[in-house]
Amino acid sequence: MAETVERTRTVMVAVIGDGDPRGPDAHRVLEWAEEVGALLARGGASVVTGGLGGVMRAAARGAVGEGGLTIGILPGDDPGDANEFIRLPIATGLGVIRNLVVVTAADAVVAVGGRHGTLSEIGLALRMGREVVALGSWRVESDRAVGGPRVHRARDPREAAQLALRMAKDGPIRPS
Amino acid sequence: MAETVERTRTVMVAVIGDGDPRGPDAHRVLEWAEEVGALLARGGASVVTGGLGGVMRAAARGAVGEGGLTIGILPGDDPGDANEFIRLPIATGLGVIRNLVVVTAADAVVAVGGRHGTLSEIGLALRMGREVVALGSWRVESDRAVGGPRVHRARDPREAAQLALRMAKDGPIRPS
Amino acid sequence: MAETVERTRTVMVAVIGDGDPRGPDAHRVLEWAEEVGALLARGGASVVTGGLGGVMRAAARGAVGEGGLTIGILPGDDPGDANEFIRLPIATGLGVIRNLVVVTAADAVVAVGGRHGTLSEIGLALRMGREVVALGSWRVESDRAVGGPRVHRARDPREAAQLALRMAKDGPIRPS
Amino acid sequence: MAETVERTRTVMVAVIGDGDPRGPDAHRVLEWAEEVGALLARGGASVVTGGLGGVMRAAARGAVGEGGLTIGILPGDDPGDANEFIRLPIATGLGVIRNLVVVTAADAVVAVGGRHGTLSEIGLALRMGREVVALGSWRVESDRAVGGPRVHRARDPREAAQLALRMAKDGPIRPS
Repeated sequence: MAETVERTRTVMVAVIGDGDPRGPDAHRVLEWAEEVGALLARGGASVVTGGLGGVMRAAARGAVGEGGLTIGILPGDDPGDANEFIRLPIATGLGVIRNLVVVTAADAVVAVGGRHGTLSEIGLALRMGREVVALGSWRVESDRAVGGPRVHRARDPREAAQLALRMAKDGPIRPS
Repeated sequence: MAETVERTRTVMVAVIGDGDPRGPDAHRVLEWAEEVGALLARGGASVVTGGLGGVMRAAARGAVGEGGLTIGILPGDDPGDANEFIRLPIATGLGVIRNLVVVTAADAVVAVGGRHGTLSEIGLALRMGREVVALGSWRVESDRAVGGPRVHRARDPREAAQLALRMAKDGPIRPS
Repeated sequence: MAETVERTRTVMVAVIGDGDPRGPDAHRVLEWAEEVGALLARGGASVVTGGLGGVMRAAARGAVGEGGLTIGILPGDDPGDANEFIRLPIATGLGVIRNLVVVTAADAVVAVGGRHGTLSEIGLALRMGREVVALGSWRVESDRAVGGPRVHRARDPREAAQLALRMAKDGPIRPS
Repeated sequence: MAETVERTRTVMVAVIGDGDPRGPDAHRVLEWAEEVGALLARGGASVVTGGLGGVMRAAARGAVGEGGLTIGILPGDDPGDANEFIRLPIATGLGVIRNLVVVTAADAVVAVGGRHGTLSEIGLALRMGREVVALGSWRVESDRAVGGPRVHRARDPREAAQLALRMAKDGPIRPS
C-alpha cells in the first residue's frame, strides 16, 4: 500500500532563499528563483517554499505560471500571510522551526541566494538526508570527510532545476 | 492580493484522534472518523490529518471516497509513511511537534475519540485560536472564566461535520 | 553510569499558568503560584517555568525565596526576557513550542489557573507521560477510558506541592 | 530588573559536534572537545551541549573537571539519557529540533568536528544571531555579501575557547 502512495504522489522540490533580497544582484536572484520555479513545474514537480516574499514568491510565481502546484509552509498561524502564488498554504505556528518542514517535505532542495536563514535550511536539509542544489548561494565544506547528501553547485537556473529534478526522482548524484 | 488568496483557497478541516484505537468502541470510532471525513469533503473542505493510521486513515479514506483533497502532516521524514488515502503527504521531521502543525494548518478541528496525543492537539488548537468539535472525545473545562475558542460537543458525525464546516467558513459559533 | 545521573540529579517540577492573569481571582492565583514555588523548593525540587511574567514569575519568586534553583524556558532568543527570579534562563527561539520543553524537562507539573496555553501544556505533559496537578485550573476528562498519566486536582498550594513532589520522586499516584 | 538578570547570570557557551566521531582523527576531535570544555569552564562559562555522547560528552567531561556547570539539552523525553557529566539535563522531546535550543540557549557556539547535524546547528546559530567558532569543523561561505554573525576558524582548543569566551562576554569580533 505504501508503495502505491510512493508511486502516485507528485515529486516535491523546495526552493529556499531570501525573503527580501537586497544588494546589486537582488533583481537577478529573483529572476533566477522565478525561472527555477517555472522549470521545476514544467518538469512535473510541486514547488514547496516558505510561502512569504522574495525568493519564495518569485519561485511560486514561476511555478504557477506553468500550472504547477505551490505549497507554502508558513511560519505564522494565518494562511492569509501566504503570497498570492501559493495554492496550498500550510500555516504552522512554528516560527523559525518551519524551516525544517520546508526542506523535509521536499525530495530535493534548491537554494537561490540567501542569508543565514537559508544556510540553516541547507544544514537541516542535509541533516534530513535531502540533496541540495545551490545557485549563487552558500558553499559549505567540511575540514573532515563527511559522507551522505551534498550541496551541488549549479551555474544557472536550468542546471539547478535539472539537478534537483533528477535527484528528487532518482536519488543522489554521486561524483564518479 | 492577500484577500484574493483568502477568497480562493479551499477551507481546511483537521480530523484528529487515535492512531490505533482500542477497546470495545474502537470500531465505532473508526466508522465515525470515516463518516466525518466523507461529510467534510462533500461540504467542500480539504481534510488535514497526521497522515498515519487509525482515525487519521479512516478520515482520509472517507474524504477520498468523496473526491476530497487529503493532506497528511507526518511526524517522520519519509512521505512513504503516509496512509494510502493521503493525496498530499507533508513529511515534517518534527516528531510530537507535528501535532501543532496539524491543527494550525486547519480552519477548524474535529476530534474523534483519542487519547493524550489528541488532548494535546485540542489544547494546541485552542491556543492557536482554532475552534474544536469533539465527538466521543475529551471534555475540557476551566475552573475559571476563559474566553476565546471553545470545544463544541457533537452527538454524531453529521453534527460534527456541520459545526466544523460552519466555523471553518464563518468563524466561531458563540452560545447566545 | 546513567543510574548515577538519575540518582544524583535534582528533582524538577514545572509550574505552568497564565503569564498575565486577569479577573477577580488574579491576585489569588499569583499568591497560590508563589506558595507552590516556595513549597516545591523547600521540598528539594528545582522549579521549571516558561520564564516570563504572571504565574511563571510568582512561582520563581517563591522558589528563590527558599533558595531553590529556578529554570526559565523562554520562547524567544534573548535570555534577558527572563523575569528577575530566574537563575538559569534557557532562551529557545521555539515560540509556542517551548511549552513542550517546559513540561518535558520536568518530572511532574503543577498547573495554577491558566488559559489555553496552559491547557496545551497540560495536554503535552500527559502526552509525554508527566503527571499533572491542577490548582484552580483545567478539568479534562475523556468520554472513553484512557490509561496513563492523569490530572490530579488539588484544593490548595500545600496539597498541590505535596502531590507533585511525591509523583516527581516516586512516580504516579494511582487511585486505589 | 532585566538588567540585573543580564549582569548576574553566568555566560553560556555551547559546544557542538559529532555524537559518535569516526575516522582516523576521531580521537583528536574528542581530545579537542574535552580541552575546549575545560577552558570554557575555567573561563567562567557554563557549557551547553546536546547532552549525549562523543563531542557532547567530552566537552562536558572537560568542563566538570574544572568545576563548571554543564547543561544537556536532550532530544528525547528521558533525563536519564544524559551522559554522566551533565549536571543539569533538560529533556525536551523535540527530536532534531533540540538543535535550535542548544545554540539559542548559548551566548556563543564552538563547533568541534561534526557532520550534517553540526552544520545545521551552525546555520541555526547564525540565524539566531550567535557567533560561531569552528575547530576542524565546517567552512561556510556565501557567494554573496551577507552581514551579521560569522563563523570564526580557530587553530586549536585554546584559540577556540578564547574567541568564544570573548564573544560570549563582549559580543562579536569584527575583522578590522
